Amino acid sequence: MSAIVPHVVIVGGGFGGLWATRALDAAAVRITLIDRCNHHLFQPLLYQVATAGLSSPDIAAPLRHILRKQRNVEIRLAEVADIDAAGKGIVLDDGTRLDFDYLLLASGATHAYFGHDQWAAHAPGLKTLDDALHLRRHLLLAFERAEAEADPAKRAAWLSFAIVGGGPTGVELAGTLAEIARHTLVNEFRNINPSDARVRLIEAGPRVLSSFPEDLSAKACRQLRKLGVEVSTGKAVTDINECGYQLGDEFIAARTVVWAAGVAASPLARSLGVPLDRAGRVLVNPDLSAPGYPNIFIAGDLASVQQDGKPVPGVAPAAKQMGRHVANAIHARLQDRPAPAFAYKDYGNLATIGRMAAIVHFGRLKLSGVLAWWFWLAAHVFFLIGFRNRLIVLLNWTWAYWSYQRGARIILGSDEAGQVRQDRQP
Amino acid sequence: MSAIVPHVVIVGGGFGGLWATRALDAAAVRITLIDRCNHHLFQPLLYQVATAGLSSPDIAAPLRHILRKQRNVEIRLAEVADIDAAGKGIVLDDGTRLDFDYLLLASGATHAYFGHDQWAAHAPGLKTLDDALHLRRHLLLAFERAEAEADPAKRAAWLSFAIVGGGPTGVELAGTLAEIARHTLVNEFRNINPSDARVRLIEAGPRVLSSFPEDLSAKACRQLRKLGVEVSTGKAVTDINECGYQLGDEFIAARTVVWAAGVAASPLARSLGVPLDRAGRVLVNPDLSAPGYPNIFIAGDLASVQQDGKPVPGVAPAAKQMGRHVANAIHARLQDRPAPAFAYKDYGNLATIGRMAAIVHFGRLKLSGVLAWWFWLAAHVFFLIGFRNRLIVLLNWTWAYWSYQRGARIILGSDEAGQVRQDRQP
Repeated sequence: MSAIVPHVVIVGGGFGGLWATRALDAAAVRITLIDRCNHHLFQPLLYQVATAGLSSPDIAAPLRHILRKQRNVEIRLAEVADIDAAGKGIVLDDGTRLDFDYLLLASGATHAYFGHDQWAAHAPGLKTLDDALHLRRHLLLAFERAEAEADPAKRAAWLSFAIVGGGPTGVELAGTLAEIARHTLVNEFRNINPSDARVRLIEAGPRVLSSFPEDLSAKACRQLRKLGVEVSTGKAVTDINECGYQLGDEFIAARTVVWAAGVAASPLARSLGVPLDRAGRVLVNPDLSAPGYPNIFIAGDLASVQQDGKPVPGVAPAAKQMGRHVANAIHARLQDRPAPAFAYKDYGNLATIGRMAAIVHFGRLKLSGVLAWWFWLAAHVFFLIGFRNRLIVLLNWTWAYWSYQRGARIILGSDEAGQVRQDRQP
Repeated sequence: MSAIVPHVVIVGGGFGGLWATRALDAAAVRITLIDRCNHHLFQPLLYQVATAGLSSPDIAAPLRHILRKQRNVEIRLAEVADIDAAGKGIVLDDGTRLDFDYLLLASGATHAYFGHDQWAAHAPGLKTLDDALHLRRHLLLAFERAEAEADPAKRAAWLSFAIVGGGPTGVELAGTLAEIARHTLVNEFRNINPSDARVRLIEAGPRVLSSFPEDLSAKACRQLRKLGVEVSTGKAVTDINECGYQLGDEFIAARTVVWAAGVAASPLARSLGVPLDRAGRVLVNPDLSAPGYPNIFIAGDLASVQQDGKPVPGVAPAAKQMGRHVANAIHARLQDRPAPAFAYKDYGNLATIGRMAAIVHFGRLKLSGVLAWWFWLAAHVFFLIGFRNRLIVLLNWTWAYWSYQRGARIILGSDEAGQVRQDRQP
């Protein structure tokens, strides 16, 4: 019997890491939770921050505050520089080494440009709050540039928006952007008509929201078109530069291209030296431990898990379940029991499209339109962390619903003092 | 009689510029309102964004939205590069020249370091939303650094906060920071006790809030001390570097110094080529026109106006009154009447100190403490633009009041992807 309490290091305060931490509340361990941000982010609503419907603090909560009562947790705001898997230690970016008895890697995913990293400068993605504020700035400035532009062709390019990737994020962004152009900005400009804006959603595969059954996917497509989105499927974007993008034989002038197509696991997985899948995720054992390292676990978007021949999807409920499973596995190990295998329980799938438009697929239940949208809204408010956030988000949405306005339409400067530069893309 | 409608150019969408624009609603002019930000900012609550009590969009509203129904206004998101006063034209940063019949300069003030510009890097100021987010990041990261620091002296330096300048902004920041350290962060750290933080307010003059009568100023000082702020008066800071600051004979280690001491007029005033006061403000004619240029007016913090031997203070009500006055003056000129002289009506003065602490001075009425705080709160909610903002701010404050929490405690990254760098100040 050891007098020293086992040390559990958890990397990442997202759904995987936070749910694991909470599930170890009563365990006789000491936990160090490491994240490079000071907050847990409710990623499913990130597109709302990017499209100026919500403020950053509405969908984030400080990790320290969430975990203030859990006395076995210490939080470190840091980045992990290296993992010494064999020696059971990790090294932080300030050079500190932390030895662990158990490690959970849950550092999530980042966008991937499929080998076209040069596109990143012209087609920003959406994974963090900083990404969302950058994108908000980009979208709002595009209308400002169009208003100031005298040349009709250049003006049209500023009013041409493309979203690459027809998954949930792409669909949400396209639907909301169409609403902004057609409703929110009405009457606000003198030289342009914002509803002339062209919002195009591009999916290389045969249909949008391909994780849903075909009929729901087709309904989503119809709802998108009704909102004013041009949906293009079956053709991939083959080039992106600051003037526009190449789609098949056609080059389309567009000053705003948003990347919602590719996701790759956080590069941290590579430093483990274990087999990865094509997206850089760890091919974990059935108990979510890393091959060859029984004391190292993986959860969330960093884990590649197959179940019934299908991959477990990279969604919040899956990450939470994995987090809780890892906590159970560590419990078991502490009692010298073998860890059980992880089993993903699929409670259903839902995606929002825009104002009063969504699709829902729960077992045999299939909904679309207004009812699905209310369902989506209730679920998302319910799962937000913090009573205050729920209240503020509900208030903002009620306001947006009645007024067609978006409360956070504030351009914050990433260049010095919010200055506007004409010589580069917004 | 000319068929061409006179062109009024207004630079700055703050209290001066926006109130002038609105007051020209029914005038037979076309207005171009120029601002480098897309929003009107309610500056009196900026310290709340810096101290994580409110989000940026809570105290700002898009200028286009505010003015959407006023059809004689066109808004340009741009910076003014030069003014051709004699030739009645201004040049924007993209090279566009706009000719005007009347010009209103209301571009406000910026911080000034009294010839010590090297202090700017170590003692950020607070004038814009970007400043506020920068400061928020700085304040929140200081506690994170202290938590991760093993050396007691270095840790104390991270927990040492100085606010230079005992005017309203300095007092608000000091009071709120003391509340954060003593209440908000309780239980959230494992290696430090946030209430060990030292919050020092430094005023070179003999007393804080010197625009108030002496007895109220003394009461404010007592309230600050009760909240846990060390108040130092009568000694000036003579040096600031990344390790701390020099105050008289003493060098005090502090990793956070906030600059709330000096204000200078926007540099735009200089390009007019007219007499300026020491702070760079235009010494305007009684009707607020610039000396020698009857068609150029100045309002707000850019105007140096004397009344009854005292300067008109740089506060929001004065700027609004000047804005409205300039609109009247332009009305008068359009009808070939002489413009009247500007007369400032002082409705009173109020300043908040912290939780349930404020001072109010309205004519013979002097209040301090809880009652003054409620007065301050009601006034500030009332004067916010937009019903939505009022509702959200009230909700946030009610929440903060009951929970001692601050909803916007989210560190947003100004470096890439919110990464934390250990090798520099936050």
